[in-house]
Amino acid sequence: MRITILTLFPSVINEYINSSIIKRAIDNDNCAIEVVNFRDFSENKHKKVDDYQFGGGGGMVLSLQPIVDAIKFYKKENSKVILLTPSGKKYKSSFAKELSLEKHLIFIAGHYEGFDERLNNYVDEEISIGDYVLTGGELPALVIVDSIVRLIPNVISKESLISESFEDNLLDYPVYTKPIDFEGHKVPEVLIGGNHKSIEEFRYKSKLAKTKLNRYDLYKEHIKNKKGINNE
Amino acid sequence: MRITILTLFPSVINEYINSSIIKRAIDNDNCAIEVVNFRDFSENKHKKVDDYQFGGGGGMVLSLQPIVDAIKFYKKENSKVILLTPSGKKYKSSFAKELSLEKHLIFIAGHYEGFDERLNNYVDEEISIGDYVLTGGELPALVIVDSIVRLIPNVISKESLISESFEDNLLDYPVYTKPIDFEGHKVPEVLIGGNHKSIEEFRYKSKLAKTKLNRYDLYKEHIKNKKGINNE
Repeated sequence: MRITILTLFPSVINEYINSSIIKRAIDNDNCAIEVVNFRDFSENKHKKVDDYQFGGGGGMVLSLQPIVDAIKFYKKENSKVILLTPSGKKYKSSFAKELSLEKHLIFIAGHYEGFDERLNNYVDEEISIGDYVLTGGELPALVIVDSIVRLIPNVISKESLISESFEDNLLDYPVYTKPIDFEGHKVPEVLIGGNHKSIEEFRYKSKLAKTKLNRYDLYKEHIKNKKGINNE
Repeated sequence: MRITILTLFPSVINEYINSSIIKRAIDNDNCAIEVVNFRDFSENKHKKVDDYQFGGGGGMVLSLQPIVDAIKFYKKENSKVILLTPSGKKYKSSFAKELSLEKHLIFIAGHYEGFDERLNNYVDEEISIGDYVLTGGELPALVIVDSIVRLIPNVISKESLISESFEDNLLDYPVYTKPIDFEGHKVPEVLIGGNHKSIEEFRYKSKLAKTKLNRYDLYKEHIKNKKGINNE
């Protein structure tokens, strides 16, 4: 997979992708990431990338020319162009799986007041990582890249991907490591016993209980889907 | 406001907070951020911070000792300790406003398979930034810090905060800048006319239409609340 990130803050992106698992994925040729400052595409003599908005209101708006020219430069037939914006489609786990199958993703990270609305004519998808406002699109771009890269085969162990949060609309089961007793807080005995069937049962029940408590919306989805399967 | 971030990847956090608006907020004394590598608190002679999980399963689990000792070192009476985890309470705009009023926030960014479940006994809140899995808690910590810092008075202009996405459960209105005609895509005429009442009307209608199209869940909430107010 090839990933192109258009941003005004390349150093932020570079620092993250050069650490941890993404770095390993790049080194092992599981993916290639190019970080591009779209200011370099500005035709303005001062390399300006933003301007006042029509109709009045606070904040500068990103101009179309530099971003559209950068898209045109990097876009190939199999590219998917993604705009990070709070008004986009909400990102979630299943969406990460879809995107991890793409050949080439181009992410556009904005800043300041936002993009000129007409940029929509040049992108394939608007995505939001959650219902909150950030100062720019760099963190959303990295969130999506991180969640996708870990799904590319061989990047992390298959074992780690078998059970994780949001599979079947459940949160993941709780994990414990040494010591067995930490300041009076103990590891559940069943996990120490070594009876695999009991451990599996304990983990499934813990998942259900935690999801019901913390995320009743997901719990309801899980129960609904389970009933659907049983009735087939 | 004081912010403490406990992480195994301080450089990732530092690079982000030293760029853009957060850097300006720090320079202007609107907030202070300290980034701490909790590996420094490990009592293990090799500074190890993780171990195998009880009951079997892939991935290493973060040990309690280094993180708990780091919390104890930084926590004061007015501190709020926040754990970033996909199984936490879902972060959103209104939550950012609450947190922006706190005196001291301690964020714990995990990595690998996750935290020992018993860490819950030492934290005030578990937060998730969305229904997807990431390789670590660094991006979620930065997402929350970014969304909070921009709300601290004087960090960005009041004008920019007046209308933005998720206020009244609506997405923000579209913005446009020069040129008026870009490859045949035009700025709506009403925005060029200069009639403030028409502009306001256009923007409100655009917000409604965009929210209805992209986020029907928010649109329903908006209409429900509006009816509630009108019936009072």
